[in-house]
Parts: sequence; C-alpha cells; structure tokens
Amino acid sequence: MSNTTPEPAAPPSDRTRVRRYHWLARYDRETINDIIDAGIVCHVGYVFDGHPYVTPTNHWRIDDHVYWHGSSASRMLRAQSQGIPVCFSVTHLDGIVLARSAFNHNINFRSVMAFGKAELVPADEIESVLEVFTNRIAPGLWDHARKPEPKEWKATKVIRLRLDEVSAKVRTGPPIDDEADYQLDHWAGVIPLHTVLGPVEPDPKLRPGTPTPDFIQNFKLWKDR
Amino acid sequence: MSNTTPEPAAPPSDRTRVRRYHWLARYDRETINDIIDAGIVCHVGYVFDGHPYVTPTNHWRIDDHVYWHGSSASRMLRAQSQGIPVCFSVTHLDGIVLARSAFNHNINFRSVMAFGKAELVPADEIESVLEVFTNRIAPGLWDHARKPEPKEWKATKVIRLRLDEVSAKVRTGPPIDDEADYQLDHWAGVIPLHTVLGPVEPDPKLRPGTPTPDFIQNFKLWKDR
Repeated sequence: MSNTTPEPAAPPSDRTRVRRYHWLARYDRETINDIIDAGIVCHVGYVFDGHPYVTPTNHWRIDDHVYWHGSSASRMLRAQSQGIPVCFSVTHLDGIVLARSAFNHNINFRSVMAFGKAELVPADEIESVLEVFTNRIAPGLWDHARKPEPKEWKATKVIRLRLDEVSAKVRTGPPIDDEADYQLDHWAGVIPLHTVLGPVEPDPKLRPGTPTPDFIQNFKLWKDR
Repeated sequence: MSNTTPEPAAPPSDRTRVRRYHWLARYDRETINDIIDAGIVCHVGYVFDGHPYVTPTNHWRIDDHVYWHGSSASRMLRAQSQGIPVCFSVTHLDGIVLARSAFNHNINFRSVMAFGKAELVPADEIESVLEVFTNRIAPGLWDHARKPEPKEWKATKVIRLRLDEVSAKVRTGPPIDDEADYQLDHWAGVIPLHTVLGPVEPDPKLRPGTPTPDFIQNFKLWKDR
C-alpha cells in the first residue's frame, strides 16, 4: 500500500465518490486490488425483504471480478443468484492514531467498497474459480487435498461481482492536529496493528508420519506474498 | 472466547437464527459481548434509495447497546438518525483450517450479527458515551487529550443500536473431515492468525520532552484486556 499515488483517478460513479475524509480516496485499480488481495474476509451487504443484511465471507479476486462462495442452500447465495444489488466491503485496520485533541483521534486503515449486481457463476466455471480461491488460501492446496465429488460440487454456489463501481480509502501516518494544538504538551502518535501467524497446529488425527507440505512450511500471509 | 458454552440459548428471532453451520451458533449474551468487545471495527449495513450500503466504522458497547459515530454531515449518519433498519456485523478471523478434502477447508472465526433500528443518541448523552469510547481505545485517553469544543461537538453524531436481535457464530479447533477421508495421507491442520501491536510511533511533531503516558506504555489490545 502506498499513500503517495500522485493523482487519484476520477471516481467511477457518484455512489463511489468518497465524501467523508475525501482526501483519503483512491480510485486507481492497483491500490484497490492490493487492498482486496491483502485479506480473505470481506463483508457483503444486500437487501432481503427490504431489510439490510451484512454477511462476512471469504473472497478472492480474478482480474476485474471479486468472488465469494457458499452453500447452494444459503439464503444469501440464493438471493444473490438472482442478480440483486450488493455492496462488497474489505477493511484492514492498520493502527490507532492518537491526537492531541479528542476530535482528531483516528485510525489508520485501508478499505475498499464496491457496488453492483451479484452474478451467479455458471456451473461449468466453478471448478476453475474455486481452484484459484483454494490456491490463494495456500499456494498448491488445490492439488493437495481431495477434490470435490459431484454431490459436493452440487452443494456449492459461487457468486461474483464485477469491479465497475469501486473506490478505496487509505489513511496512513501520524495524527493531524489543529495548528494551535501542536503547542500542547499532550502525547500523540500511532499504535500500529498487524496480523501475524501463530505456530501451525497439525490435526491431532493426522496419520502418523504424514509429511508437512511445502505450502504449510512456507506459508505466508496474503499481505506478505 | 469459549467454545464450550453448554447449551446455547434460543435465538431471539427467526432472523437471527443461524442457518448455515447452525451448530456453530451462540446466542448467550456473554459470548456475544466478548466478540463485540474484542475489536473496534464493525461493518454496518443499511439501505439507502433501495440499495445496500456497508460501512466500516469503529464501534463500542455500553450494556445492551452498540454505538458508532461520525460526522454530522455524513450521509450514513443522517440516514440512520431517522431510525432506519441496520445490520451490525463484527468479525474476527482466527485461523485457516485446512482439511483433507477441498470441500471441508474452513476458517476459524468469531462473528456477531445484530439487527434493529438505528437510533440517534440525544445531544446531551453524547459526551458520556464518547468518553466510554475514547477510554476503550486507550484507558485514560479521554482525560489526556484536549476535549471537544462546541463546534466539534456540533460536528459529531452518535448512533446506537439495541442488541435485541443478535446472534454469534464461533468456529474453533481442527478440521472436520468426512469419516472416509481420515484414511488419506493428506496433511490437515490449522494456521492460527493473531492481531499484534507494532512498536509505538510517536508523532514526529511531538514537543521535545513530552512524556509517554502510562496508557501508551501499557497499551494492550482489546482482546487482551
């Protein structure tokens, strides 16, 4: 993530034009893709019976589409299969920004918001996009585990959203205080936050002697790949 | 977070009854509060002009309400001030669960979803609830920084949601494979993920000799308090 994009491109629509803290807006596709690819959890909003729903789910990106998947019986996926409007949101919390004044406390973050109509991925494309997803979780994982059987494929739906109306918002760096407040003796600064890996926990039911594959030994977080 | 709640209470409504992986559902208030309090970023869904919006924002909880705040000019907050339905969602990613079969890969997570009508917090209550929020960010922070001035109070709206219709979902532990797959030689296990603090970054514009307050020196993440 860079905060130095020289000139943000124009927002793709009025809906994606960032209004609050608009100087944090980023509309270039590289920044947007980096934020999407740096994590595997998104929040998808949709309207069902007139009410808002927000569902956390895993996402992945292929070119100009983001994807998520789930059970064919899922109420969310059945609704989205009909092509309803969705809001796709990815957020990374990078730090707590403490200012000299309460009003200027802030957080450092990277976020993406995309709007559009959900689309059911045709059955004959599911295998290739789920292979991408699985290898995004851990490179090589798709060929390692037992592949889905017909009834498992049948139980799986994949939804995608084309990244047409999309914007990002990025805050980095120290607090910004009102000019007069810089004379105060209050402490100010940033407490950075990071996601890290813990020690791998092999399944207690592993067959004795099962080797640890390279993609586990060399596992890296998405942001570090 | 405990995964050993003996008997989950009944879901408070049909809308909060967890359908997918329903055996992961938790309806007891202690589990729900723990998940909400373990982080400071939520995603709030609402409907505007018939379309779904999902906004990441900071949240805090006081008893049976969750709160978020923002600019008085914010489109989201102005809409929510009218008492529209919202969906409040908090999600923590705890690990990647790799199974012997692609179909059974999973993630370990804790999430909360709450439904209800947003409510504008009356102006005369804003100071007390923002004090709670600020001290949740870092205990003692409210009394440390310059307090808001009248124009800053005027620029701030606080929204709350009563936790009436709320449920949690918690997955922990190793993968669960189909019985036959335990005979396979594939590796399976969990890659845990954690949020950690980085080294504190004092504002480069700090006045020389400004002492580092205790709440910075002893800062702990919300999950560790």
